[in-house]
Amino acid sequence: MTTLVFGHKSPDTDATCSALVWAWYLNTTGTTAEARVLGTPNTEAAFVLGRWGFDTPALLTEIAAGQPCVIVDTNNPAELPAGINDADIQAIIDHHKLVGGLETKGPIDITIRPLACTATLLHQLMGDAAETAPDAIKGLILSCILSDTLEFRSPTTTPVDRALAEKLAADLNIAIPAYAAEMFAAKSDVSRFSDAELLRMDSKEYTVGGVDFRVSVLETTSPQTVLSRKDSLMASMLDVAKEDGADQVLLFVVDILNEEATLLVPNDLTKTVAEKSFGATVTGDTVVLPGIMSRKKQIIPALKV
Amino acid sequence: MTTLVFGHKSPDTDATCSALVWAWYLNTTGTTAEARVLGTPNTEAAFVLGRWGFDTPALLTEIAAGQPCVIVDTNNPAELPAGINDADIQAIIDHHKLVGGLETKGPIDITIRPLACTATLLHQLMGDAAETAPDAIKGLILSCILSDTLEFRSPTTTPVDRALAEKLAADLNIAIPAYAAEMFAAKSDVSRFSDAELLRMDSKEYTVGGVDFRVSVLETTSPQTVLSRKDSLMASMLDVAKEDGADQVLLFVVDILNEEATLLVPNDLTKTVAEKSFGATVTGDTVVLPGIMSRKKQIIPALKV
Repeated sequence: MTTLVFGHKSPDTDATCSALVWAWYLNTTGTTAEARVLGTPNTEAAFVLGRWGFDTPALLTEIAAGQPCVIVDTNNPAELPAGINDADIQAIIDHHKLVGGLETKGPIDITIRPLACTATLLHQLMGDAAETAPDAIKGLILSCILSDTLEFRSPTTTPVDRALAEKLAADLNIAIPAYAAEMFAAKSDVSRFSDAELLRMDSKEYTVGGVDFRVSVLETTSPQTVLSRKDSLMASMLDVAKEDGADQVLLFVVDILNEEATLLVPNDLTKTVAEKSFGATVTGDTVVLPGIMSRKKQIIPALKV
Repeated sequence: MTTLVFGHKSPDTDATCSALVWAWYLNTTGTTAEARVLGTPNTEAAFVLGRWGFDTPALLTEIAAGQPCVIVDTNNPAELPAGINDADIQAIIDHHKLVGGLETKGPIDITIRPLACTATLLHQLMGDAAETAPDAIKGLILSCILSDTLEFRSPTTTPVDRALAEKLAADLNIAIPAYAAEMFAAKSDVSRFSDAELLRMDSKEYTVGGVDFRVSVLETTSPQTVLSRKDSLMASMLDVAKEDGADQVLLFVVDILNEEATLLVPNDLTKTVAEKSFGATVTGDTVVLPGIMSRKKQIIPALKV
């Protein structure tokens, strides 16, 4: 039976392309494998797929009991199909904190490392096989690293991620600044999305002090494109929170080039969050948070109500 | 702050000695680390510690919030100190199925592999450093593998475990059959333990069909020593189940040399378990299950009520 490889339900570059990379590797080892996505890849991931000649992987909405699968870029059952604990999970490869909840029927291969990017870890696990990868696979890995590190600007970046990206770029004869600018331009092209889609595009649920937040991040080189829509985005937050069973949506618009985030402040709860979590002084309905780029490393650990 | 390395609450050879092995390795990498045990090591583990010149690690009963630690040989919070999710877990190295429940504050190193023995995985993770290990550390790793594989008889044994044990034995000039016999004799020396202690010595809780079982295993080269106490063991099961909040204790006496298990059958529930799970025909208060040696690989996956 074909082994399915997939990431989480909000397919960004790392989740989408890491699935393709690992499926390629499994096939070289004699295991028939195919990548899947659990949603529509974001605009950056779509650009990367096209740039390196891949079709968008088929959509997986349900997983059959006993289906062999490998999970990349998450260990959170809330970000996976409902039946995941009844599937035949063969491996989990991730770089997020262990959240608990995922169970396996027997001992399997689980590898989690505090790297910026799942694809960096895949490259390590492939060992010598990584050297034999075709350019398209190397290009996906490079793209994942540039995406997750925001071209090495994010504090999640490790020397291992950076060194690998630079080596791959040299192999591929790619100029990193120009290529990353193309990727970020693709990610910033969000005009076609509704407000609700923007709020859910890169969003994770966290509970702090009994309040259920949907913590949404939009990484962009063109923050004004998003911020010009702030009134309708703030109005949409009420519906999104209600539909998703959350108390409040927090939207951080991350300015990749200026290395800062703008938090939308629709109400007193969010104002309190900005003040207590980031020591910010809030006067209007947005507040700039200098240096804030990473949900994992900077936003979530700081969150207070 | 010193990093504490420990296994689960029923310290057998692998849990006890893997903690010592990894603490040694961390110290060679510049991280100050010490092994701990979460209970009294079993008689085999005590023999192995003495054989290779180690004192019993200090007992850890509570873990302070923020205490740096590495967990080996389990990922089950029920087998760890109550405050474990508030500790600073730096790594988890294990060979059991993912049970869920353990959480970490950020991304950390987690490595789980379907090997027979945690120490085999530690040896892999140490890389070249494993070659520089002193004989005492190599002796601990060899002992862990022989213990967890029952000298390669258990179906959990992988070629990787076996090849490493044979290499280490050659390095150390140890004859495996004679050394394993000494270890198993130590494990079989259970005369000083009360019935309740025997039932809890190597025991894991599993819920099947709404029934909470305490699945206890005693691996021995002298099954008659245990089976001669079967009446008082069966009487003690009632108290142990009640005290531990379980519905039923199942005791499998594993005959290492004859590669079979004897299940004690105190009541109809256990008779049904024996029949449905193992296709056994039960006539008295014990039943022999040929070939059954591994709780992880044979007993738990088969369990039905």
